[in-house]
Amino acid sequence: MITYDFEKRGKQTLYEFLYQNIKQDILQNRLKADEKLPSKRTLARHLNISVITVENAYAQLLVEGYIYSIEKKGYYVSAIENMLYAPAALTPQSQRKKSSVKPSCFADFHSNSINFDNFPFSLWSKLMRESLAQKDKQLLQSVPFNGLEQLRAALADYLYHFRGMIVDPDQIIIGAGTEYLYGILIQLLGRNKIFSVEDPGYKKIASIYKSHDVLCKYISLDSNGLSTDELAKNNVDVVHISPSHHFPTGIVMPIKRRQELLSWANESGSRYIIEDDYDSEFRFTGRPIQTIQSIDTGEKVIYMNTFSKSLAPSIRISYMILPVHLMEKYRNTLSFYSCTVSSFEQNTLADFIAKGYFEQHINRMRNFYRMQRNLVIKAIHSCSLDKKVMIMEENAGLHFLLKIHTDISDEAFMEAAAKKGIRVSFLSHYFQKSENAKRHILVINYSGIETEKIEESIKRLAEIIS
Amino acid sequence: MITYDFEKRGKQTLYEFLYQNIKQDILQNRLKADEKLPSKRTLARHLNISVITVENAYAQLLVEGYIYSIEKKGYYVSAIENMLYAPAALTPQSQRKKSSVKPSCFADFHSNSINFDNFPFSLWSKLMRESLAQKDKQLLQSVPFNGLEQLRAALADYLYHFRGMIVDPDQIIIGAGTEYLYGILIQLLGRNKIFSVEDPGYKKIASIYKSHDVLCKYISLDSNGLSTDELAKNNVDVVHISPSHHFPTGIVMPIKRRQELLSWANESGSRYIIEDDYDSEFRFTGRPIQTIQSIDTGEKVIYMNTFSKSLAPSIRISYMILPVHLMEKYRNTLSFYSCTVSSFEQNTLADFIAKGYFEQHINRMRNFYRMQRNLVIKAIHSCSLDKKVMIMEENAGLHFLLKIHTDISDEAFMEAAAKKGIRVSFLSHYFQKSENAKRHILVINYSGIETEKIEESIKRLAEIIS
Repeated sequence: MITYDFEKRGKQTLYEFLYQNIKQDILQNRLKADEKLPSKRTLARHLNISVITVENAYAQLLVEGYIYSIEKKGYYVSAIENMLYAPAALTPQSQRKKSSVKPSCFADFHSNSINFDNFPFSLWSKLMRESLAQKDKQLLQSVPFNGLEQLRAALADYLYHFRGMIVDPDQIIIGAGTEYLYGILIQLLGRNKIFSVEDPGYKKIASIYKSHDVLCKYISLDSNGLSTDELAKNNVDVVHISPSHHFPTGIVMPIKRRQELLSWANESGSRYIIEDDYDSEFRFTGRPIQTIQSIDTGEKVIYMNTFSKSLAPSIRISYMILPVHLMEKYRNTLSFYSCTVSSFEQNTLADFIAKGYFEQHINRMRNFYRMQRNLVIKAIHSCSLDKKVMIMEENAGLHFLLKIHTDISDEAFMEAAAKKGIRVSFLSHYFQKSENAKRHILVINYSGIETEKIEESIKRLAEIIS
Repeated sequence: MITYDFEKRGKQTLYEFLYQNIKQDILQNRLKADEKLPSKRTLARHLNISVITVENAYAQLLVEGYIYSIEKKGYYVSAIENMLYAPAALTPQSQRKKSSVKPSCFADFHSNSINFDNFPFSLWSKLMRESLAQKDKQLLQSVPFNGLEQLRAALADYLYHFRGMIVDPDQIIIGAGTEYLYGILIQLLGRNKIFSVEDPGYKKIASIYKSHDVLCKYISLDSNGLSTDELAKNNVDVVHISPSHHFPTGIVMPIKRRQELLSWANESGSRYIIEDDYDSEFRFTGRPIQTIQSIDTGEKVIYMNTFSKSLAPSIRISYMILPVHLMEKYRNTLSFYSCTVSSFEQNTLADFIAKGYFEQHINRMRNFYRMQRNLVIKAIHSCSLDKKVMIMEENAGLHFLLKIHTDISDEAFMEAAAKKGIRVSFLSHYFQKSENAKRHILVINYSGIETEKIEESIKRLAEIIS
């Protein structure tokens, strides 16, 4: 009869030890298929353990299919393959590859990371604590598919007062990041559509369309932004643009081009404009640029924005505003998706906006970024770079362009900068069609640079072309 | 010369009022294309405002493209279309449709909502507060694409100790809900694959595959779960299953069938098994069922689980465990996606698991659900239903099956129940191939029913067939 040394069971319970041992015996073919197991009572007596222990072990083996029972006869070993079971090979630990550590650098003008020294951390956590204290169980309820009502209401109100946009909270969909929302939009608009992105542009957007395997074309820009002629020529259905502040060129699309785009969209039922307004809050002079969404009377514009840029990248809350008929379609076809943002954070953000803290924060950040920009420009003017460069598109966003009068290739410049501990990127890197790529134009992302390093970083860049 | 009544400007600043008025004049064609605007100085004197006010208004009109400037000559009106601009039509308020309010009912055995009276709310918010206090700025940093390291480590540790799974934290990907992760998996495995789901099964899973426009087949179950013969017959590449506790049948897939499935997967490089383990924590007798992932030596199993069921639906944290080679592929092709869960919640959950609270919570919930189940069963036995029904698959999860000996059709029963304020669903509703659908079997989801309503609810159901 099967016998196991219960002294060896360590911290396992009697029942677990018995279950494991019988399982091993079955897997290693020491107990053969259709072999009858001893009755519970017999085995218990034999092993000097209680019947209930054997009963529990048999029950577990039964539910997992290692043994089967025949009424009034007893328990039998199931016929199972044992080839696949090789516990020794299970651990992937040895194959483990550690993600490579990025080489640290003195200053990084490439990444458009944001500064969060100014994030009102204590205020945010106060609101989160209040929300936890006041809302209590409410926070555990399922959130509506399109997001928490308070947050959508606070957003609509904010957009009305600070962007002049008239939006019904029911047109808003909250999601965990714009990247997630792009995927949802593909499902909403249909995979048979031809999508298009700006060239040059933010590369990740095209990567996402491609990863979803939809046709995505690159449309060139002229000085007023995306060319509508090219849209027609390429049979584009859906165009993804950042008209308020294009990355990386900084172009603000003028009203005439916006109207041309709307006319283009209105020519066919399948055409839409995705207005990606990701850093529109950071305009240094004048009012924020009016959105295309505000002048769209044909239900053609899908507006998108995110709080990852304006608050912190670790706060994954974005939203889109759908035209009324698309919202109806969403409700009918995609509202089975649960909202991807936790109610705790939606509550906190709703309060943060409704109580005016968001607007205050944006103003503070705008001032901070303006100061950063001014320091970078001042550093440029006070060193040998001054006469060899031209600063462009510096009135908005978190970057500007710096045209360098030099013969050094963009690649050689980057390499030389890297040797000096400075990461930079060139406008040319953001072009898909390299024949169009404009050379010798640096994209200076200043938002994440430590203030005290600005002067030294610019000096190091100057050395390269002096 | 253009003249505006500054008395009417209300709360607008002088500059904004001037900007708005000139813009309206341009859009409504009162100022014609290429018409020269008065010089800043002249207009300022004329309107009795400062030059800087006019300058700001002109600058804003310029950047938005309403006017253009010619050096040393002045400002001119741009040629723009005005057809599209019709602010009166902007508001969709009138078209607003309010989401219909669900009729309230006495008890809902249909929805598999969970009970969160037992959620350790104060503990959760304490951890969140601690995390806010201790981690501070750290919480604002971008999270790695696959999730916070502490959370992945805590999960791997938990899975090792409570599920016997050997998992490298680097194989884990955190995401905002399994629904989101399904979409990611489609991108990872390829849209050309043939996916399959269980029939009967949880309908949302098939909806998600269909919404992504990938081929998704329904595979019938026998008493041991999904049939491997049918997989081969249908040329399936990827099979999505819940082997530990199938919804709604409650079938636990026996070890033999699991091995058959693994053999099937190992026959071709393109085949994978998605093991969706969504409610495996709630087994009332014996140990948790061993996962297929644990016996997979061919890197064929993608394991998935969620905290929406075990904690609260408003906490959107799920994860998947990828085989090593798929994780490499993910790193190379999809790691540009940002992690969709905020760092605040990942931190809190990591602490919650690492400090043992999750295990405590699961034990408490398991006891609570066991009590709920027992009360429902007791109520059945104590009323006239007792002799007309058979209870099946009651040892796990948050539901069981109730076979009713009756001639009343499932539809008629549902309607009769609804009239009594009770929402129910039948097993037959979860079948795609209706010829296979088993009739007269209620799916009793007891997890969300208020304890004090159980007896009365069952009594009302009994009345239908008495």
